[in-house]
Amino acid sequence: MVGGELPYQKNLRKKWWMFELGIHIIADFLGVDPRKIARVEDLRVILDRVVYKSGLHVVSSIFHQFEPHGVSAAYILSESHLSVHTWPEYGYVALDIFTCGSDEPALRAFDMLIEELKPTHVERKMLRREFYGKNKNSDTQKPSGV
Amino acid sequence: MVGGELPYQKNLRKKWWMFELGIHIIADFLGVDPRKIARVEDLRVILDRVVYKSGLHVVSSIFHQFEPHGVSAAYILSESHLSVHTWPEYGYVALDIFTCGSDEPALRAFDMLIEELKPTHVERKMLRREFYGKNKNSDTQKPSGV
Repeated sequence: MVGGELPYQKNLRKKWWMFELGIHIIADFLGVDPRKIARVEDLRVILDRVVYKSGLHVVSSIFHQFEPHGVSAAYILSESHLSVHTWPEYGYVALDIFTCGSDEPALRAFDMLIEELKPTHVERKMLRREFYGKNKNSDTQKPSGV
Repeated sequence: MVGGELPYQKNLRKKWWMFELGIHIIADFLGVDPRKIARVEDLRVILDRVVYKSGLHVVSSIFHQFEPHGVSAAYILSESHLSVHTWPEYGYVALDIFTCGSDEPALRAFDMLIEELKPTHVERKMLRREFYGKNKNSDTQKPSGV
């Protein structure tokens, strides 16, 4: 036994590998100034700046203007995606940052969005995106990276 | 007291309203046939069909082809978004479906994606996206809809 590991856990470890893909930050901001989040042209400037400065890598992005106000934005990143939906009438922003690889750029982008949007209230959940694969031959097989 | 509600809860209910925005399905599929998820042109046909048949409403979509294989896709919906990232080398798909309003179309899209991609293993989390606002005048104030 290793460090309190139970026999069935050791067995499980032999038959499966676990691959940790990355982090998914799911956040809800309240109390955001509606003027920052009502129109694509205003929000896009903020989001582009945050994505660029945080060290994330954009491969494609789309924006949609809802009427009379409200924005949806999705950035496909080489690291996965960042999406934002806004309800200016409630000062509300729904944010997702899902990145594979290092957590650092995602956490930096999150902090920068708080700095830029200045919500009065923040709810944040952080999930690990990971998956398990079955070893075909031995307990030493590992995925070679993303 | 109502149904076992404690005095401080009643007080909380008076001062704040809660707004339930919708559902966020976060899923990881394993064991998907790599031929279905390696190229944009193949996966897009599946995703377009699922989004259309599930009753979701697309306002914009983007797709990115990673080389030598792997796809990222993001649909901005009038209901929020659906995103997919694939790692064909692991038969792995990372899926997000975030919708406001009724849960039904999101759940239908999720079931249809399982039907189409036939993963051998599925991890699913369902989050409620919701937020709280402070009442200005009384405990009867409610947001008027999204």
